[in-house]
Amino acid sequence: MHLKIALLGGDGIGPEVLAQSVKCLKAIEETFNHNFELVEAPVGAIAISGTGKPLPDSTLKLCHEADAILFGAIGALEYDNNPEAKVRPEQGLLKLRKELGLFANIRPVKMFQSLIKNSPLKENIVKGTDLVIFRELTGGIYFGEKHINQDGTVASDLCEYSEKEISRIAHMAFKAAKKRKKKLTLVDKANVLESSRLWRKTVTEIGKSYPEVKFECMFIDNAAVQMMLNPSQFDVILTDNMFGDILSDQGSVIIGSVGLLPSASIGANNAMFEPFHGSYPQAKGKNIANPVASIFSTAMLLQHFGLDEEANAIVFAVHESFAKKVVTADILGSSKYGTDYVGDFISEHI
Amino acid sequence: MHLKIALLGGDGIGPEVLAQSVKCLKAIEETFNHNFELVEAPVGAIAISGTGKPLPDSTLKLCHEADAILFGAIGALEYDNNPEAKVRPEQGLLKLRKELGLFANIRPVKMFQSLIKNSPLKENIVKGTDLVIFRELTGGIYFGEKHINQDGTVASDLCEYSEKEISRIAHMAFKAAKKRKKKLTLVDKANVLESSRLWRKTVTEIGKSYPEVKFECMFIDNAAVQMMLNPSQFDVILTDNMFGDILSDQGSVIIGSVGLLPSASIGANNAMFEPFHGSYPQAKGKNIANPVASIFSTAMLLQHFGLDEEANAIVFAVHESFAKKVVTADILGSSKYGTDYVGDFISEHI
Ligand SMILES: CC(C)[C@H](C(=O)O)[C@@H](O)C(=O)O
Ligand SMILES: CC(C)[C@H](C(=O)O)[C@@H](O)C(=O)O
Repeated sequence: MHLKIALLGGDGIGPEVLAQSVKCLKAIEETFNHNFELVEAPVGAIAISGTGKPLPDSTLKLCHEADAILFGAIGALEYDNNPEAKVRPEQGLLKLRKELGLFANIRPVKMFQSLIKNSPLKENIVKGTDLVIFRELTGGIYFGEKHINQDGTVASDLCEYSEKEISRIAHMAFKAAKKRKKKLTLVDKANVLESSRLWRKTVTEIGKSYPEVKFECMFIDNAAVQMMLNPSQFDVILTDNMFGDILSDQGSVIIGSVGLLPSASIGANNAMFEPFHGSYPQAKGKNIANPVASIFSTAMLLQHFGLDEEANAIVFAVHESFAKKVVTADILGSSKYGTDYVGDFISEHI
Repeated sequence: MHLKIALLGGDGIGPEVLAQSVKCLKAIEETFNHNFELVEAPVGAIAISGTGKPLPDSTLKLCHEADAILFGAIGALEYDNNPEAKVRPEQGLLKLRKELGLFANIRPVKMFQSLIKNSPLKENIVKGTDLVIFRELTGGIYFGEKHINQDGTVASDLCEYSEKEISRIAHMAFKAAKKRKKKLTLVDKANVLESSRLWRKTVTEIGKSYPEVKFECMFIDNAAVQMMLNPSQFDVILTDNMFGDILSDQGSVIIGSVGLLPSASIGANNAMFEPFHGSYPQAKGKNIANPVASIFSTAMLLQHFGLDEEANAIVFAVHESFAKKVVTADILGSSKYGTDYVGDFISEHI
């Protein structure tokens, strides 16, 4: 198969972990006789320094043309500490999601039995966790009108949702639930928010067309609690952009490291694959970042194009690295293996 | 001391746990020779059935006149499952907070060493947790303009904050940090939200007047992670209404039960005391709810009026109940002691 893949390393540890994914893609290309056209492009803080824009036009153009995008991470301390900067790295990622219409962010959270000791949760609680979060990605408070008054003393963000935005991801989530454990939990704050009540009404209605799926609703504050008390009660979680951000990061940590989980962002014509984790600027250039989330994201990419055997080869190689304890320090407390070495090991075991 | 205290039991388990607080207030009254005028009033779903309003005028009037309010909980399943209901129990609580100007919700999260085994987190992680959340309570997306278009297909909520709203709670939080471990963490989503950037700018500026307090900022997604990975890194957490809701519920569960923690909601002229936990309608009338959060809320109330010895007597009696394992089932897995019995035990040990 020929695939054109845009490589957007971004900021912080993004480029380092992406480089390990590239090794894997090359190994898959050789082993399975594919033809991957890999094209790098800047995004985020690094793109601002180069071009003044967090998402240069040429990067966006490339992403439109590409069959898929592998994304690293975004965000830099100099912007985090400067709330008044008008041009910000994250705008690059948000614009990319919006322009490509990547409305569904799919974040699977599955326990690796061999890493259960790493979870901050007690083993009996986290055991058996296998859920997937469907986070709406192009609406809500992330994209609603932002306002700041002239003297900078009042600021606002609008959280808006339409039935249409809700129903397209709801159908995807119900379909996924049908193929999984047949349960869908809508997470919202319908006791307070009008937008949440539209979610609840719309999704409840759609649920009727999926009678084989058990449907329930949960308030976000309770969901954040349940994620710590009993995560294995969940199968598919459906939620909005902001709540999905919080819940999925919570999900990633319960499985033992924030450096392991991949995600897919799906739109009508495009798909992007990226780790759950952020840019972790403190670790940049230190060769300590865990490349597994990025490598698993690569496997999700292959799966997206029906290359299941290839995806499995990657997953298998990662499990091999777990078994041989060729893992970064976040997994073992300390480790003699760096990002690069782990990437080599995994790609060589494909 | 003479105190007029409004008792608002509300919905679900609210009235049951509040009844145990009343026993404690009566014991304090006798033992320490005070005069507590206790006046009950309806709020929430129960008030809707009686009067059509979630916060009847007479209840609001009583709260204005009272020296303090003890609150139970609010929320009922028939409303949760009916997103189209226009009159909702939670409006009663929100209106009360707004009308009384209770802008600062103070939620201490402290590990009870004797209950450490109950935490879903591993002992080495949760050990030493002692933080307090300052949640802004009368602004943000909870109170911003809500809108739904005529055919009910687009709904929105506005998250708005002014410098003034931010700075009054920020000063309170910094002052608290000064008396504690001298660290303040602002939790926001300043990489995406305009309102968060106003928080970050305003609080950073205010922080300069508290040079003895170490100030740091954290994104909400990361804060939800850190609450599970390393909660003892926190001292004072300052955050907005919505993020505070989520983080404080997360905080309550790590100490081993959502049924233990009290909170104070403070305004210029009024103060209200309530458990972290919700109305837990599934447990209503079963005599299984943990009354400790409500009883600790009573202790916070007494403390608020400088009655430290009295407050300590309550805390001591609760610890006595822990030591003797006279606790409800949420603490022990199963228990022969109900809400009522635990309330009797604690009030008799004052
Ligand atoms: C970097 C940030 C804008 C982003 C988000 O909040 O969506 C990140 O946290 C994520 O979850 O992908
Ligand atoms: C009942 C609900 C409106 C309330 C809130 O979200 O503020 C509750 O969850 C709380 O934390 O006090």
